[in-house]
Amino acid sequence: MAARIGTVAIVGVGLIGGSFALALKQANLVDRVVGVGRRQASVDAALKLGVIDHAATDVAAAGSADLVLFAMPVGQMAEAMNALAPHLAAHTLLTDAGSTKQDVVARARQHLGEALPRFVPAHPIAGAEQSGVEAARANLYQDRDVILTPLAETDAASVQRVAELWRACGAKVSEMSPAQHDEIFGAVSHLPHLVAYALVNMLAQRPDGERLLGFAGAGFRDFTRIASSSPEMWRDIALANHAVLQHELTDLQQHFDRLRELLRSGDGAGLERIFGAARAARQDWLKRKGYAQE
Amino acid sequence: MAARIGTVAIVGVGLIGGSFALALKQANLVDRVVGVGRRQASVDAALKLGVIDHAATDVAAAGSADLVLFAMPVGQMAEAMNALAPHLAAHTLLTDAGSTKQDVVARARQHLGEALPRFVPAHPIAGAEQSGVEAARANLYQDRDVILTPLAETDAASVQRVAELWRACGAKVSEMSPAQHDEIFGAVSHLPHLVAYALVNMLAQRPDGERLLGFAGAGFRDFTRIASSSPEMWRDIALANHAVLQHELTDLQQHFDRLRELLRSGDGAGLERIFGAARAARQDWLKRKGYAQE
Repeated sequence: MAARIGTVAIVGVGLIGGSFALALKQANLVDRVVGVGRRQASVDAALKLGVIDHAATDVAAAGSADLVLFAMPVGQMAEAMNALAPHLAAHTLLTDAGSTKQDVVARARQHLGEALPRFVPAHPIAGAEQSGVEAARANLYQDRDVILTPLAETDAASVQRVAELWRACGAKVSEMSPAQHDEIFGAVSHLPHLVAYALVNMLAQRPDGERLLGFAGAGFRDFTRIASSSPEMWRDIALANHAVLQHELTDLQQHFDRLRELLRSGDGAGLERIFGAARAARQDWLKRKGYAQE
Repeated sequence: MAARIGTVAIVGVGLIGGSFALALKQANLVDRVVGVGRRQASVDAALKLGVIDHAATDVAAAGSADLVLFAMPVGQMAEAMNALAPHLAAHTLLTDAGSTKQDVVARARQHLGEALPRFVPAHPIAGAEQSGVEAARANLYQDRDVILTPLAETDAASVQRVAELWRACGAKVSEMSPAQHDEIFGAVSHLPHLVAYALVNMLAQRPDGERLLGFAGAGFRDFTRIASSSPEMWRDIALANHAVLQHELTDLQQHFDRLRELLRSGDGAGLERIFGAARAARQDWLKRKGYAQE
C-alpha cells in the first residue's frame, strides 16, 4: 500500500497527465492536484472536469508540490524544466512521461541542477492514439507498462516512491537504462510510426492518390492507424531518438532488399518462409500479451 | 433486379466462395450450389453448414454449371482452370475472386480456350484477414468493392451478368484493366502486407526479439494485424504481382532515405510536414470511406 502524497503538480494536463491525476485520486493517495498548462482554456477544462483542483499557466505554481509530473511532448520538456528549476522546493520529487528517455535525461542534467537526484525518468506505455484531458480516465494505466530509467545519481528512495505511485495507478513497473529504453521503443513503436507516416504520405501525394486510397480497405485502416497520431509529438520523438531510428530504417531497408531479391527471382518458398515466420511470431506475441487471437 | 441463375459452382469453398454462395441464396437467385474442394472434409463442412448443396472433390463436377467461381489462392488457379476446361459446357459463365488479375488473366488465356470470352476476371475486396468456410456469411459483400477486369475479348453480356450477380450480393461493382488493378492493389494492399511481414520478421528474429516485442503495445498490434494473414495466399499474391511490388518497395525505400536525411540533419519542420500531411490524408480518407474518425 502506497503512502499518501500531499500535492501533485501535473505540468501538461492532457490524457497522460490527467489520467495519472485521476488514478491517484481514485486510489485516495493525493490531497491536491495542481495543473499547469500553456493555455488557460486547457487547464480550466481540466479543472471543470475535476481532473485537477487548481489551475495555473505559470509553472512556478508547481514549485512547492511534493511530486511534479512533466507530461508534455518531449520537445517542450527543456523549457518547462528550466522554468521550474528556480522555484523548486528542496523535497520535491520529479518524474516525467516522455516517450523518449535519453534526451529527457540530457535536458534534466542541463536544467534541474541540485534536484537531479530526485528526478525519476519514466515512460508510461499508454494512450498514444488519443489525446486531450477530455479522454483522461482513472484506469488508463491498469495493467500497462511503465518504464523507469533511473540514472547513476538518482536517489533510490525517489525511484521507490515513484514506482509505488505508478503501481497504485495499476501499472506494471520495470526498470532499464535510458539507452535500452530508446532502443526498444525505437524498434517496436517509433519505427512503425515512421513507416506508417511514410507509406500514407507516399501514396497520398501521388497524382492519382485519392483514387488509389479509395480502394484501400480495413487492412490499410489498421496498418495506418498510427499515422493519425499527433505530428508534433512524433516530430519530437523522431528528433529525440534520431540515431536509433536511422539505424532501424536502414535495417528495414535491407529487409526490403531481401524481399525484392526474392520477388525478382520468383522464390516463393523464401517469401513464404518470411511471411510464415512473421505470422507465427505475431500469433505467439498475441498469446503472450494476453491479446485475443485474430 | 437480377435474373435467377440455375447452378453455381464454387471451386474453393472458403470464406470468399462460401459468402458468395450464401449471398446468392439469400437473394433467392440460385437454384443449386455445387462446391468443389481439394479435401473431402472441407467440402463436407460446407455442405453441413448449408453453404453448398452438393459437395465434390473433382472439378469436373463444376463443368455443367451456369456459373463457375474460382475462389482459391491465385497460385492454384492454373491447375483448376486446366482441370475444368475439358468438362466445360458451352454456355457456362466463369469468374474468379483472385487478389491479383494480370496473372489470373494469363492463366485463363493459357487454359480456358474457347471459354475465354465467357470468363470475367473479378476481385471482391473483402475478408482477407479471416479464412475458412465457417466464417462465410451472406452479408460479407455488402457495400464492398468488387473490381471487374474484363479483357478485349470478354463478352459484354458476360460482364453484365457477373456484375449483376455481384450487385445482388450488395457489392459496389467497378471496372478497370488488369494492369491498373494490380498497380492499385499493389500499392494499397500488397505493399502494406509485405511491409508488415518484413517488420515483424525483422524484430522477431533478433536475439532479444522476445523481450523487444514484450514492450510492443496496441499501436503495434494494429500496424501488424495484416502480418497474421495466410502466408500461402500472400506468397501467391507477391509472386503474381512481383513487378509492381519491387517498384513499390523501392519507392518506399526512397521515402525512408528522405526520412533518414531529415533525422540526420535534425530537420523537425521537414518531419512534421510529412507526418502532418500523412495524418491529414488519412483523416480525409476515413471520412470519404465513411469510417469512424479515430
